[in-house]
Amino acid sequence: MSHFIELLKTRWETSKSMLCVGLDPDTERFPEFILEHECPIFTFNQAIIDATQQYVCAFKPQIAHYSALGAEDELEMTIDYIKEYYPEIPVILDAKRGDIGSTAEKYAMEAFERYGADAVTVNPYLGADSLEPFIKHEDCGVIVLCHTSNPGAKDVQQLDVHGKPLYEHIAQLCVGLNKHNNLALVVGATQIDALRNVRSIANDMPILVPGIGAQGGDLAAVLEAGRAGDGYGLIINASRSILYASKGNDFAKKAGEEAKALQMAMG
Amino acid sequence: MSHFIELLKTRWETSKSMLCVGLDPDTERFPEFILEHECPIFTFNQAIIDATQQYVCAFKPQIAHYSALGAEDELEMTIDYIKEYYPEIPVILDAKRGDIGSTAEKYAMEAFERYGADAVTVNPYLGADSLEPFIKHEDCGVIVLCHTSNPGAKDVQQLDVHGKPLYEHIAQLCVGLNKHNNLALVVGATQIDALRNVRSIANDMPILVPGIGAQGGDLAAVLEAGRAGDGYGLIINASRSILYASKGNDFAKKAGEEAKALQMAMG
Repeated sequence: MSHFIELLKTRWETSKSMLCVGLDPDTERFPEFILEHECPIFTFNQAIIDATQQYVCAFKPQIAHYSALGAEDELEMTIDYIKEYYPEIPVILDAKRGDIGSTAEKYAMEAFERYGADAVTVNPYLGADSLEPFIKHEDCGVIVLCHTSNPGAKDVQQLDVHGKPLYEHIAQLCVGLNKHNNLALVVGATQIDALRNVRSIANDMPILVPGIGAQGGDLAAVLEAGRAGDGYGLIINASRSILYASKGNDFAKKAGEEAKALQMAMG
Repeated sequence: MSHFIELLKTRWETSKSMLCVGLDPDTERFPEFILEHECPIFTFNQAIIDATQQYVCAFKPQIAHYSALGAEDELEMTIDYIKEYYPEIPVILDAKRGDIGSTAEKYAMEAFERYGADAVTVNPYLGADSLEPFIKHEDCGVIVLCHTSNPGAKDVQQLDVHGKPLYEHIAQLCVGLNKHNNLALVVGATQIDALRNVRSIANDMPILVPGIGAQGGDLAAVLEAGRAGDGYGLIINASRSILYASKGNDFAKKAGEEAKALQMAMG
């Protein structure tokens, strides 16, 4: 079993939580006093991490929120902070990378070596050989997009291929590639039927479920359709509804309350 | 017509070339003296750009080669250098981004605002609404993966959807989204039949063709299958065969010769 999956399974049990907090910093939504700090994004994240850590099974920084601003250094600081103070919590770098083999090697270096993430999200459109350079990092998690939470998911992911939607073929492809037991899948919270289908194809493979909170997914339905046999199996992400629960000086406290409420609702 | 397409069309005619040089720096393959420079990647790129610019219709830096090393600053310097000295040559940021709308906005900021690229490559797996945040930058080019050059392309892109391979549906989706005339497609040089099919679906939409050179694509076959009605229409990328034509002090001269030979072969 990969180090990522081991971390995750242990953390599900010790935290009694399948909540993942997405660290998607949007400086326009920060409390004003944070903007005066030298590293506002890191300062914001640090407060959110401290306030929510006891309620989470994972943290998931979304890299575009850093790279759009040239803030890779603050992403590094954020992951380093989690690794130093909360090493028992896995970090998923949400980057949705995908390229041919020799370039995919570079993306794997970016995620696992440069940033030290425990897992990375990847896009399957280029096929199995584009996933292998990630998968061969046996201790790291490789979380493959299967059925996303946006309306446009239907344009490609739901296309009918030999009587089954494309996303089911992707789930099956990943089951076949899971020789190191380090794969996981992404299925959006807005797609309950897809979640149920993917769970039945993927056995107890972890499923990352974005779309709770700001995107409107239904938590009870997600739990019913997506839980694995051991009662866990899900990494249920919320970002904006937690990070921006308040724009006041109490933003971290409110984020903690929001995270706690979600953790309780998953009980 | 978008600024990107205008730049490209003008450049095809003035350079009499459809060659694109991929700026995929791999420091292990650099001549040793380059490694002594403070910014070795930028120094290498600068020499390659100066030596090949007269033979190219575009430059295409591949971002993973920078982000794996934390060298975003040298990518910025590289694009700034092209913009300052060769503003008539379009720059394609090869990043293959793809995410839901609010995150795709951030990736568009990364490519077009932070780096100032004229175009970016994107992945269509998340559907039309994941492409729109790029497309709405009307002056910028959005180059969508259709059929890639790697063997794994068959795993997903060639799956049969209602009697046609998936990549043809992607090409058609892009034709339908091309209201600002700023879209283009990626079809690998190893896939001549796919290139012919996509050309017939996409009319005169530009097609970026990686896979010449190190990946073994056949240039004459690419030209025959992929040219648009005006005799141009292709952005034929070569990276390693040009960048690493020599590991000696003559690397730039050899890169220039290699680029010239490819440009001549496209005549």
